[in-house]
Amino acid sequence: MTDRTPRSSAPRRSWWGWGTEDRALSDGECAALGALVPGAAGTPLPVPGIGALDLPGARVAPPASLAPLMSDAPRDRASHTYGKAYRDVVRALHGDLAAAPDQVAFPRTEQDVVDVLDWAAGADVAVVPYGAGSSVVGGVEYRGDRRGGVVSLDLSALDRVLDIDTTSRAARIQAGALGPDLEAQLRPHGLTLRHFPQSFEFSTLGGWLATRAGGHYATLLTHIDDLTQSLRVVTPAGVDESLRVPGSGAGPSPDRLFLGSEGTLGVITEAWMRLQDRPRHRASASVVFEDFTVAAEAVRVIAQSGLHPANCRLLDPGEAALAGVAGGGRSVLVLGVESAHLPVAARLAELAGLARDHGGRPAEGPQGEDRPAAAASADSASSDAAAAAWRSAFLRMPYLRDGLARMSVISETFETACTWDRFPALYEAVHRDLGAVVRRVTGAPGMINCRFTHVYPDGPAPYFTVIAPARRGSEVAMWDEIKAEAMRILGEHGGTVTHHHAVGRDHRPGYDAQRPEPFALALRAAKDALDPAGILNPGVLVDAARR
Amino acid sequence: MTDRTPRSSAPRRSWWGWGTEDRALSDGECAALGALVPGAAGTPLPVPGIGALDLPGARVAPPASLAPLMSDAPRDRASHTYGKAYRDVVRALHGDLAAAPDQVAFPRTEQDVVDVLDWAAGADVAVVPYGAGSSVVGGVEYRGDRRGGVVSLDLSALDRVLDIDTTSRAARIQAGALGPDLEAQLRPHGLTLRHFPQSFEFSTLGGWLATRAGGHYATLLTHIDDLTQSLRVVTPAGVDESLRVPGSGAGPSPDRLFLGSEGTLGVITEAWMRLQDRPRHRASASVVFEDFTVAAEAVRVIAQSGLHPANCRLLDPGEAALAGVAGGGRSVLVLGVESAHLPVAARLAELAGLARDHGGRPAEGPQGEDRPAAAASADSASSDAAAAAWRSAFLRMPYLRDGLARMSVISETFETACTWDRFPALYEAVHRDLGAVVRRVTGAPGMINCRFTHVYPDGPAPYFTVIAPARRGSEVAMWDEIKAEAMRILGEHGGTVTHHHAVGRDHRPGYDAQRPEPFALALRAAKDALDPAGILNPGVLVDAARR
Repeated sequence: MTDRTPRSSAPRRSWWGWGTEDRALSDGECAALGALVPGAAGTPLPVPGIGALDLPGARVAPPASLAPLMSDAPRDRASHTYGKAYRDVVRALHGDLAAAPDQVAFPRTEQDVVDVLDWAAGADVAVVPYGAGSSVVGGVEYRGDRRGGVVSLDLSALDRVLDIDTTSRAARIQAGALGPDLEAQLRPHGLTLRHFPQSFEFSTLGGWLATRAGGHYATLLTHIDDLTQSLRVVTPAGVDESLRVPGSGAGPSPDRLFLGSEGTLGVITEAWMRLQDRPRHRASASVVFEDFTVAAEAVRVIAQSGLHPANCRLLDPGEAALAGVAGGGRSVLVLGVESAHLPVAARLAELAGLARDHGGRPAEGPQGEDRPAAAASADSASSDAAAAAWRSAFLRMPYLRDGLARMSVISETFETACTWDRFPALYEAVHRDLGAVVRRVTGAPGMINCRFTHVYPDGPAPYFTVIAPARRGSEVAMWDEIKAEAMRILGEHGGTVTHHHAVGRDHRPGYDAQRPEPFALALRAAKDALDPAGILNPGVLVDAARR
Repeated sequence: MTDRTPRSSAPRRSWWGWGTEDRALSDGECAALGALVPGAAGTPLPVPGIGALDLPGARVAPPASLAPLMSDAPRDRASHTYGKAYRDVVRALHGDLAAAPDQVAFPRTEQDVVDVLDWAAGADVAVVPYGAGSSVVGGVEYRGDRRGGVVSLDLSALDRVLDIDTTSRAARIQAGALGPDLEAQLRPHGLTLRHFPQSFEFSTLGGWLATRAGGHYATLLTHIDDLTQSLRVVTPAGVDESLRVPGSGAGPSPDRLFLGSEGTLGVITEAWMRLQDRPRHRASASVVFEDFTVAAEAVRVIAQSGLHPANCRLLDPGEAALAGVAGGGRSVLVLGVESAHLPVAARLAELAGLARDHGGRPAEGPQGEDRPAAAASADSASSDAAAAAWRSAFLRMPYLRDGLARMSVISETFETACTWDRFPALYEAVHRDLGAVVRRVTGAPGMINCRFTHVYPDGPAPYFTVIAPARRGSEVAMWDEIKAEAMRILGEHGGTVTHHHAVGRDHRPGYDAQRPEPFALALRAAKDALDPAGILNPGVLVDAARR
């Protein structure tokens, strides 16, 4: 099969970095960005051309029956080598593609998926399921020396909404559908999945399900798990399809075994997803706090109020500055409320009142009003100035991250969730202990920012951004040292190794320490039962008896 | 060990039926109740005395080290033979106790649980975990011919709230705590678990967790799953303790494997549970509908409104009459709203308005007002007349069921959940097809009622009650024939075999048909890994390699 070229009208996806090539920063923009970071390199790393890449020879060729589905074109192999973590982008920029898959399979039907797995099991080929490659945890990157070679299984051709039940508000959607594509297919019915991770534009339903993705909304239904009615999963031991019901108490949930299984137990091909009416009422407001810990306490009160804000995003001063939110050196809390059926102004007023009662004061600039939102894009939950600024920066952030990577500036994030009683110590330890590591490793003060991406009655999901200049050529080693310390701190302070970025290969040490050992036994046994040849995403989550 | 006698002040638990002996119906009350059912027996079955029971000899004696924890006293063995299904009560009344466990173990510490499992694994003794024995699906009843004998593992001595985190609103609670006991320990802190299944008074946290129990509240957080922060489970392969966090995306949820595992994978000994502030505002209202299917459609609109009523219980005319709710032959919808922090009258008005807009009209009699509820009991969510009548009948129902059992009247329930698009056909099939079976089996028209116990945006959880006279001595056989047909109808019409009653042994046929085969492989593998000797609750959910 020849190189997959995008539809002529669509901008081409970057093979090495985030999103589309047309939105990547220019060399000049990279340099200007780097100039803001003391100690950054003076010139950007060049982006290697596909033709110049030193790809290893493909060790395996598909059988004739599967040849039409497979590609070993350099661009396909290069673009499927890594996910989109900082360390992935840096390695791609340095032309380090030794881990490239031998083949990329593009199944067009579920039967194609079955056929690829059957062949792979017999030929001892490792299969790495691939949605749109937005993993930031090494989830789609094979590491090892599989005798039979490695196939990246790209589900992007399975991108259709197959069925819509408007009565029960649910849709059967293929796993390879990108966020915008599935929303476009639901919109004519007045419905939305309402799941907007930061990667929305460049990630798929199947990827969200396999990694327990977190959406944009801050409370209540945060993870994709909660929106899942039933799954269809191709495993080497057969196709698993769960019953489509609104709730069940019949044994342990079959779906919850596959949600978060990260391609190790099977390949999710489709799902019935719970939908919602599209919001028609929205309002937002921003509140500033002099002190982040006071703000966190106010957010706790809000999270425990039962008011369920759609947005409840607390930015510390550094994060607010980075996002261009006018906080004036203070912490900013962006609150948003929305509803398909009911006016929301009163609820927003209650929320803002709680924030003010607990040490906040209204931000300057225009505040959002309750307003009909029919014309607004479905994932735009905010209307006040801070919210709008934040949102714009939020979507631009991965491109900026790539620009910083080209300037050899470490710019990466890690996230967690912990109970409220543990949060103050965890927050302090990250700043103190990780800050010390950043200084030691990079020789520069660096910057560590924090925001809350989600909040629960029993605790927040803090999200940290680390920015520091690295030594060119040592970026990955330096980041890995910082990352190991971050995992250690989270583990020591009661935080999960990941709230919504998944485990993949990068989080294995923290995951192995966190996961109860009997559960590991059970998961390994389930893996061996469903994937007896051990072909599925080896090295992720759990080691099979046969790797 | 000698017979366990209750604390002198507490009424004694019934060994054969629901609840406490003092609340059982008298012979005269049974006869009066039976007289309401055409074709019922004229005299009640007598309640056998413990001394007159023909219990099989105990096949196994505990080792000396465990003897202080164990009892083979006839009352202990008899009361741990069955759960509390209709068929259980009838068999007990007929003195059929051939399946009695050989020993009942009463561990006082988690180490006692470990010791009992260690001994049982070595001695090939089956262990049936037992909370308070409210299973209605054969979940605590051993069926088989285990060589080494059977021990019922009664967790009721592990009944303490061990730790309360008021900041994160969570508590570490032992699995054997009954509903009222754990609420009493939380109340001084202003907190509540807010989980009120019908069995509340006579069921335990561990039982709720092991069976994915459904609480009294109709929307949003319905199953105990949603209230669970982390679990501690003793398995034969070691103690499993999950990380205590508000949310996580680190692999498949460890807790979700044990939630619903019904004692087959391990013994839950404690859990960190999410708590809520005790409600201070409550309001309720009732709406009547001429037509049940119109009412169901109104409930769908409410379930999809985002208003999240605490109570949204739709009773069909028969169910309303049975509960003494003044529906005048119509369907009755009981709506309730509550909040710890905010007035609820406006939300109730919106809900009642939706019901009226979709074919309902306000019920006669007093309607509930928004009112401070500090003095109200925590599980009393209702204040209007219909709600109060329904609630009183709800708690009295199991005692009435026992009275009907003594009159050889079949009186049993089954429940499910299905998507809204499937509900009309499912409802019709139950009335038509199951009605025909009831007539054929019992020779009487019988009665089949329906209510919604929970409602979701994507579907309701319908709950059916069947009442029909049986032939004395053939009650169980007749019920089993009806039950098999009920399972078949639910399966054919897209309903789960259980929404919150669990699977146990009685629902195995429906569960085996519903559960995806690859998931069954995975669950069996997990079972074999955690319980290699196959001692834990054999026959429930899944068959181990070694039974």
